[in-house]
Amino acid sequence: MKRWMLGLALLAMATAWGLAEKAKGVSYPEGYRRWYHVKTLVLQAGHPLYDAFGGIHHVYANEKAKQGLSTGKYANGAVFVFDLLEAPVEGNALSEGSRKVLAVMEKDSNRFADTGGWGFQAFSAGDPQKPIVVNAKEQCFSCHESQKDKDFVFSTWRP
Amino acid sequence: MKRWMLGLALLAMATAWGLAEKAKGVSYPEGYRRWYHVKTLVLQAGHPLYDAFGGIHHVYANEKAKQGLSTGKYANGAVFVFDLLEAPVEGNALSEGSRKVLAVMEKDSNRFADTGGWGFQAFSAGDPQKPIVVNAKEQCFSCHESQKDKDFVFSTWRP
Repeated sequence: MKRWMLGLALLAMATAWGLAEKAKGVSYPEGYRRWYHVKTLVLQAGHPLYDAFGGIHHVYANEKAKQGLSTGKYANGAVFVFDLLEAPVEGNALSEGSRKVLAVMEKDSNRFADTGGWGFQAFSAGDPQKPIVVNAKEQCFSCHESQKDKDFVFSTWRP
Repeated sequence: MKRWMLGLALLAMATAWGLAEKAKGVSYPEGYRRWYHVKTLVLQAGHPLYDAFGGIHHVYANEKAKQGLSTGKYANGAVFVFDLLEAPVEGNALSEGSRKVLAVMEKDSNRFADTGGWGFQAFSAGDPQKPIVVNAKEQCFSCHESQKDKDFVFSTWRP
């Protein structure tokens, strides 16, 4: 097979994959800035996840996700947002910089049965036009899988 | 005057002062954890305000305060919360520790005319039973006064 044919085939596969993920329907979480602020964490240089998640991140939960944080069980329609921002330090104050990525997990035990009932997507720089997850199982669930006892959710509610 | 009489007089004054502040009515902001999360900042050792506000703080706004962040003018009933937590660092992750103080500012241009139309209170460790502001003008407004152009509010809305 000639190189350009291989390139074309790979492009077609990637496109199909992307469309398939989109069809699964984890869309941009409109209005999440009025949801519950669950918690905040800052990952600094040297942290094992720094390359992927360095900076300051906030976790937001919609009403159903908030309920799940109390009960440990999540109803379909529960959505969490992981809002990752740069964390510049100046004059001993660490503040919020520009958005690096906005990640989303949405519960639907039918559509997302192969990833614990959760669908995953992430938007580069928070741009709804720039989804970057093409394989949720590898890119997201492989890590969330460790939280099976908590229905695959890392966060806990801080009063 | 005997020492015990002086002690009693001071106690009476402090109590009167406390009651007067309470009568002004900046009460504990019930339900603020479901308000808008406006922004987060971490003040580290070496920052000029570290002694008072060292740690990680989140600012929350109720509906009226959120509207004011857009318009620059705040209606009576607008309330901001400044939620200050310890910020322990372990393994290059800075997380949220226990609550140091929960500070509140509430707009009422009639009741709080002498402090820019804002009433101030703060609760030690977030305990509704432990208000610590006895002189809002000195303890709070003296600093907020610098933000007159923004109706005495430091925060700006981060989309």
